[in-house]
Amino acid sequence: MKTIDINSDLGEGFGSYVMADDATILSLITSANVACGFHAGDFMTMHETATLAKQNRVCIGAHVGYPDRQGFGRRHIAYTSKELELMTIYQLGALRAIAESTGMRLTHANFHGALGNLSFVDEGVATAVLRALKTFDPDLKFVALPNTAAYKVAQRLNLDIVASFLADRAYTPEGLLVGRKTPGSLIKDPAQIRARVQRAVVEGKVRAIDGTDLDMPVDSILLHSDTPGAIDIAKTIRQAVKDVGGQIAPFA
Amino acid sequence: MKTIDINSDLGEGFGSYVMADDATILSLITSANVACGFHAGDFMTMHETATLAKQNRVCIGAHVGYPDRQGFGRRHIAYTSKELELMTIYQLGALRAIAESTGMRLTHANFHGALGNLSFVDEGVATAVLRALKTFDPDLKFVALPNTAAYKVAQRLNLDIVASFLADRAYTPEGLLVGRKTPGSLIKDPAQIRARVQRAVVEGKVRAIDGTDLDMPVDSILLHSDTPGAIDIAKTIRQAVKDVGGQIAPFA
Amino acid sequence: MKTIDINSDLGEGFGSYVMADDATILSLITSANVACGFHAGDFMTMHETATLAKQNRVCIGAHVGYPDRQGFGRRHIAYTSKELELMTIYQLGALRAIAESTGMRLTHANFHGALGNLSFVDEGVATAVLRALKTFDPDLKFVALPNTAAYKVAQRLNLDIVASFLADRAYTPEGLLVGRKTPGSLIKDPAQIRARVQRAVVEGKVRAIDGTDLDMPVDSILLHSDTPGAIDIAKTIRQAVKDVGGQIAPFA
Amino acid sequence: MKTIDINSDLGEGFGSYVMADDATILSLITSANVACGFHAGDFMTMHETATLAKQNRVCIGAHVGYPDRQGFGRRHIAYTSKELELMTIYQLGALRAIAESTGMRLTHANFHGALGNLSFVDEGVATAVLRALKTFDPDLKFVALPNTAAYKVAQRLNLDIVASFLADRAYTPEGLLVGRKTPGSLIKDPAQIRARVQRAVVEGKVRAIDGTDLDMPVDSILLHSDTPGAIDIAKTIRQAVKDVGGQIAPFA
Repeated sequence: MKTIDINSDLGEGFGSYVMADDATILSLITSANVACGFHAGDFMTMHETATLAKQNRVCIGAHVGYPDRQGFGRRHIAYTSKELELMTIYQLGALRAIAESTGMRLTHANFHGALGNLSFVDEGVATAVLRALKTFDPDLKFVALPNTAAYKVAQRLNLDIVASFLADRAYTPEGLLVGRKTPGSLIKDPAQIRARVQRAVVEGKVRAIDGTDLDMPVDSILLHSDTPGAIDIAKTIRQAVKDVGGQIAPFA
Repeated sequence: MKTIDINSDLGEGFGSYVMADDATILSLITSANVACGFHAGDFMTMHETATLAKQNRVCIGAHVGYPDRQGFGRRHIAYTSKELELMTIYQLGALRAIAESTGMRLTHANFHGALGNLSFVDEGVATAVLRALKTFDPDLKFVALPNTAAYKVAQRLNLDIVASFLADRAYTPEGLLVGRKTPGSLIKDPAQIRARVQRAVVEGKVRAIDGTDLDMPVDSILLHSDTPGAIDIAKTIRQAVKDVGGQIAPFA
Repeated sequence: MKTIDINSDLGEGFGSYVMADDATILSLITSANVACGFHAGDFMTMHETATLAKQNRVCIGAHVGYPDRQGFGRRHIAYTSKELELMTIYQLGALRAIAESTGMRLTHANFHGALGNLSFVDEGVATAVLRALKTFDPDLKFVALPNTAAYKVAQRLNLDIVASFLADRAYTPEGLLVGRKTPGSLIKDPAQIRARVQRAVVEGKVRAIDGTDLDMPVDSILLHSDTPGAIDIAKTIRQAVKDVGGQIAPFA
Repeated sequence: MKTIDINSDLGEGFGSYVMADDATILSLITSANVACGFHAGDFMTMHETATLAKQNRVCIGAHVGYPDRQGFGRRHIAYTSKELELMTIYQLGALRAIAESTGMRLTHANFHGALGNLSFVDEGVATAVLRALKTFDPDLKFVALPNTAAYKVAQRLNLDIVASFLADRAYTPEGLLVGRKTPGSLIKDPAQIRARVQRAVVEGKVRAIDGTDLDMPVDSILLHSDTPGAIDIAKTIRQAVKDVGGQIAPFA
């Protein structure tokens, strides 16, 4: 019986601002990628998210991003490799300390928004941030999208990789995500999401947007916490995994 | 032979902004209190300071402050105890991670500016931030001013305390610092600074502003890095200690 | 027929963060107090709010606050009078420029959160920020709570005052707001809100929490945009005013 | 007798941080480009700079930049045209209000760092920020480098342009600045600076790095306030202009 994790980006509020229904999402997932006070979150949300994760037996990791709350980490900023390396370590350290104060430890990390996207295509950037991750804690798993530069660099650095699958996004024939603005890139139909989850779990395959059949490893399924209907999609994914005999459990 | 540490607040630049001649100061002190990116500093200055400290065999600790760069952490902000606790842990964790990436470990912590001043008089605040310190790492030493609320709370929490002495500031009969705006509060005469250092080291005593003789433990002497003439004051302090047979060495 | 304005604090989102249903609120009010990028808002939300206000023929003014987005301007920060004066002018100038770029002009200003609360009790602070307002534009109206220090200072400075009434908050016998934490301070019953609005509009009176009858001038009624049920409360207030022959219209 | 302005970027401190000796520079220039609290400066430095400029009869304008104090506005951030337009208006409005509170008015504007550089090569960006400038105040002059995209767009928008000449930087044959990292790009020899100033003022020409002779209009000469030796360079420039019969005076 295959074990499948469900991961989601959480702790993205800030002060009085709420981003998603974290409490409900935490009851449906097994791993949370927690914002570290740079693109979103602050020391209060980090603590609250770690506390709620503990109560829900959800693993937590760091979701590292650019220090740009107005842009939610989604626009590119031209940092040097050294800056990217050190901002990664800063965020990892801050979250680990807050997690440990709640009795939790970090199990993983990944990269948010524009920084994540850049690491998909730029080996230099991927190397900078993944070396930072390895320096910080070589046992930290890297939750990653297959076929990206970051994935390949992580393999080269011998990092422990968790392959993350997006059930609600179309893939290119190269196994990468189709851009959000491309028609057909977002998959909203629950039946399709269900079918894609099951094929990925059972066969390790997904059909690309052009019909090509792709190998697609899946250790975890990414749930977008701020999508309308996120709760229903989470339930669909969970049921889909169980219905093919899979077990929903954290990878760590 | 008594061992005396010299500590100083460093890493207080930010981006292109320089605050003090850190490289020279680091050649004259034994422990650095490093700004953690809240009241001053950023992930780059933290790394640079840790690297320079390592080269100079200087111990590093966290200088925790309010997140207020414009105010340099010197004006009061009405945070709750929970917020103070978590911002302390966040800063400690961030600095520890960056320090470790340079092969350094944190030896100590203390509190900057308005947060430090509040911890001198408010037991609730002192308890919040010192509990945070203890939760984070019970082996971290607390560099503290005797006779303050924070000092007493640290004793109660069984923290390892390093008594810090200010050779260039007058003391009240209660053993606290005389406010900067009071005439006579700042001692600039090198001969006086020298005499005060030597008496504190040899006898563990200081004369208060009103002539009262006070017991004053001294494990470390605080050097203000941004005072004009800081380099000369540092040399005066070092020579004064050596001339009474003391040894300048880190407390850790 | 008495003319009554309805004012509300809007434009309090930030980047991807949403605070209230501004578009709907703007269809129900006549004056908006717009966050200026310090405690909330940014140059994008300011522009969007001004644009929506124009479409809804709603007047706009500046809601000036502390530069503390995490605290939403609700915790005290110890600024000097000079700092308060200049941060007020900065925010007023920024909003005026953005408003003018949409073809709108500023009609009024008031003060948010902890800064507002301080101006209610501290004449020095009230004088600093209201002098800033007068220096900036002596024709700007000041939307104010009667019986506060700020109200009295504004009278002394000959500012044009708009008396703002809170239909959903209890008043002390001195005509000030009862603190939110005091039982009975929040009035949620629509019938009571309706009755209070009508008595204030017709008689210029309100009953205090202890039963005392108070004079209470009312030029405008404050609608809290982020209270659950804000839309319904707005409708209740509008109908209450109309049912006693009042006219809902901007004060400017 | 030709009138020549000397402009410099000032008000670049922040809180306790000092960037340049603004008081001395202001005694040697005729126009100051003032940071508006985004890439540098804050409401206090803006007020202080405007006040000092007034005392020195120096004109002030807005130096608009990216909101990135850590990067000092020198690294690219991928803003949309709408964001660039609105951040420009926000900064212009904030500075105008603070300037007016000191009895000063804004005479000009230009763009700092990475935003300035982008406007040199990207017509879309130049159009966005210059339209913002024109919307804000069509009488504001644009201090600009000839041969850039921004210069051409400003001509097309009928903005009043002040041609700014850099006496200490080499030019390409296309009349643009040679990148700082290219050998020979920085001209430090006072005799050369003097000669270049005089030829530009008298003949309206400069020799490019490859020996080409270029037409180079000059209404103002840019003085870098944070270059070592800035004070001496300023004196050299002033004397050079006077020695060819020019008059140092603001363009406005």
